[in-house]
Amino acid sequence: MTTEAIDIAAIRSQFPLLTDRTIDDKRLVYLDSGNTSQKPRRVIDAMQHFMESTYAPINRSSYRLAGEATEVYEGARAAVARLINAPSADEVVFTKNATESMNLIALAWGRANLGTGDVVVLTEMEHHANIVPWQMLQAERGIEIRWIPLTADGQLDLTDLDRLLDGAKVLSFTAMSNVLGTIPPTAMLCSAAHDAGALAVVDACQYVPHNVTDVQAWGADLVAFSSHKMCGPSGIGMLWGRMEILESMPPFLGGGNMIDTVTFDGFTTAPVPAKFEAGTPPIIEAAGLTAAVEFLEEIGMANIRQHEMSLTRYTLDTLNERFGDEITIYGPDNVELRGGVFSFAFRDLHPHDVSQVLDETNVCVRAGHHCAKPLMKTLGVAATTRASVYLYNDEHDIDALADGLAGATDIFGF
Amino acid sequence: MTTEAIDIAAIRSQFPLLTDRTIDDKRLVYLDSGNTSQKPRRVIDAMQHFMESTYAPINRSSYRLAGEATEVYEGARAAVARLINAPSADEVVFTKNATESMNLIALAWGRANLGTGDVVVLTEMEHHANIVPWQMLQAERGIEIRWIPLTADGQLDLTDLDRLLDGAKVLSFTAMSNVLGTIPPTAMLCSAAHDAGALAVVDACQYVPHNVTDVQAWGADLVAFSSHKMCGPSGIGMLWGRMEILESMPPFLGGGNMIDTVTFDGFTTAPVPAKFEAGTPPIIEAAGLTAAVEFLEEIGMANIRQHEMSLTRYTLDTLNERFGDEITIYGPDNVELRGGVFSFAFRDLHPHDVSQVLDETNVCVRAGHHCAKPLMKTLGVAATTRASVYLYNDEHDIDALADGLAGATDIFGF
Repeated sequence: MTTEAIDIAAIRSQFPLLTDRTIDDKRLVYLDSGNTSQKPRRVIDAMQHFMESTYAPINRSSYRLAGEATEVYEGARAAVARLINAPSADEVVFTKNATESMNLIALAWGRANLGTGDVVVLTEMEHHANIVPWQMLQAERGIEIRWIPLTADGQLDLTDLDRLLDGAKVLSFTAMSNVLGTIPPTAMLCSAAHDAGALAVVDACQYVPHNVTDVQAWGADLVAFSSHKMCGPSGIGMLWGRMEILESMPPFLGGGNMIDTVTFDGFTTAPVPAKFEAGTPPIIEAAGLTAAVEFLEEIGMANIRQHEMSLTRYTLDTLNERFGDEITIYGPDNVELRGGVFSFAFRDLHPHDVSQVLDETNVCVRAGHHCAKPLMKTLGVAATTRASVYLYNDEHDIDALADGLAGATDIFGF
Repeated sequence: MTTEAIDIAAIRSQFPLLTDRTIDDKRLVYLDSGNTSQKPRRVIDAMQHFMESTYAPINRSSYRLAGEATEVYEGARAAVARLINAPSADEVVFTKNATESMNLIALAWGRANLGTGDVVVLTEMEHHANIVPWQMLQAERGIEIRWIPLTADGQLDLTDLDRLLDGAKVLSFTAMSNVLGTIPPTAMLCSAAHDAGALAVVDACQYVPHNVTDVQAWGADLVAFSSHKMCGPSGIGMLWGRMEILESMPPFLGGGNMIDTVTFDGFTTAPVPAKFEAGTPPIIEAAGLTAAVEFLEEIGMANIRQHEMSLTRYTLDTLNERFGDEITIYGPDNVELRGGVFSFAFRDLHPHDVSQVLDETNVCVRAGHHCAKPLMKTLGVAATTRASVYLYNDEHDIDALADGLAGATDIFGF
């Protein structure tokens, strides 16, 4: 299948912000989807329609309108399960964002299963969401954190994997780096974790929106990802877990919906997934999320990946050809091993200056530590400039990025 | 000011679901706002417009579009602070729902400040969201929970308040019962808590949407409430706290946005409120929430309260006059002491049967324990039927409720 299998112009036309919004009378070149993605008309309409016609409490009231709303909410669970090939929709827990999902894992599973000296293995390319919750547990009960290092081109250095996993209780790692784009061998790592007797936890925030995801083929135990990075609304995140693990875990937050009964003396918990969904859940957001999943499914995740691999090749080649030694792009060059996230250093310009100059031509990129400060230390930089693409980006956007960088060279007098 | 100060028909016309949605070709009589409220056109439009024109990451990227999105998000904080008369917008923390806010209090503040034998005082009319998190802490570290009992008409029995508060570290109570409608003397209770050296925590979920709220006049320390009950979207809740308390607390969830720095060895936290907002926050929801606050402000919270007091009087009188001994309405009769939440027993019909019969005439009410199982035990029932009103309800809705109940009498053969 080639890039031409999907019609980027037609896809892009479904995103009002990309087609209609202007600043200084010019349209936007949105290259910050690794941060958060734009929303297609279908998602916007689904949320609007739901609020106008079907909004009601879910799981609590028994009148027909509430039944309809509950069906919409549970429909989102089924859509998400289908997208990641989960064995059961009941294994999908809705959280507020992937960060809550990671905290739920580290703190609910972790407090129940980890004590002083227990080992959690992370990698040097993790997002803060897969670092800080474990460090909170480290401060609370003295677990040990080990780090899988990186190779010079930003892949995981697995030379010492067996030693790092020896005696570990958890291996928790990103399925695609939000800084380097690196896609590690997830199934192999899950298998290695299990061989060592460790839980296999995957931060799939950057992976699920861009790739065919099969949590069963991965052999993962717990997987976190979010709606807002995959064309869905903010305010809703996902945790998938194997049912036996979710059932064995204590709840994370207490309140309505997550209980079976409450007395003056204590409480018992509802079955999974309600056990982990305390309080009024993201109801409107679930309606939007279903529309996002359907939107992605109709285009096809394999086609999206194919497009992004092609665009990644184009991006790496364009930037390297136009700027040569003036640019350093971090992460692997092989597009089979990476996604469309491009962190780079440009001459000795500060990333914030680069992003500001790009903004003047309406090219939206992120500059900073990308919520991965330990990785910045490994790379030996304080920050990078990061452009990141999605299904609505094409070569014109990359050309605009390159033109903007050329302009930066002019402005700063090189 | 009288009820006529606000035009309910004009308000109702702004809620598409109430005006346009039909089941069996008839419009809905929505009497479940204590559960969740419907959304006005203004909120729906604000979310739609934001997604079409301004959606971007907040607090992370520096391009102009991201700056605009950040302004919208922070604007919601300012709107909420205004609504509750908070001294500073930075004291408003966005969570996923009020339940997360209550968990943040019980578990982040609680774990830092409470140990074996420390006393937390609750009331017998609390929602599970203000019970279960404390019971989780009880199981984890052996705190003691004391309960303020109720009078026969569903008010707090404060006869033994001094004894109950003696030595207590926390008093946490609802500002309006979601079952009884009871509005306790919040300022007096906060003062009594402080006199005893206890923290004053208020679950204001049912109060803020319906009343003028002044957290400073209350003298409260920490207050939880939610957007979805006050015409705003789902997926966003609020915690207000006095800055010195929020600053003294450890973080609750770890990840991006809540850190100052992260190294391989540990992390330091960002200032309040970012410290408590890990991960991508409810961005679209904040845009809708601002519209909801502005909508309520333009009508006026005092006017809303006045309307609901009048409608509460009408409801109590109508139901008692039409059904006499056949109905038992729980909670105070004095509308100064209660809001528009009506839990009742109707003959010996099961509440679920009552709600089902009402649903057949499109009257939407909740039947069950209302996430307040301990209170059900105090009331000596397994469940109640509950009708609850908001600014879009009027006497016609109450008449429809009464007509529906009369129909239930016919169906079940009384």
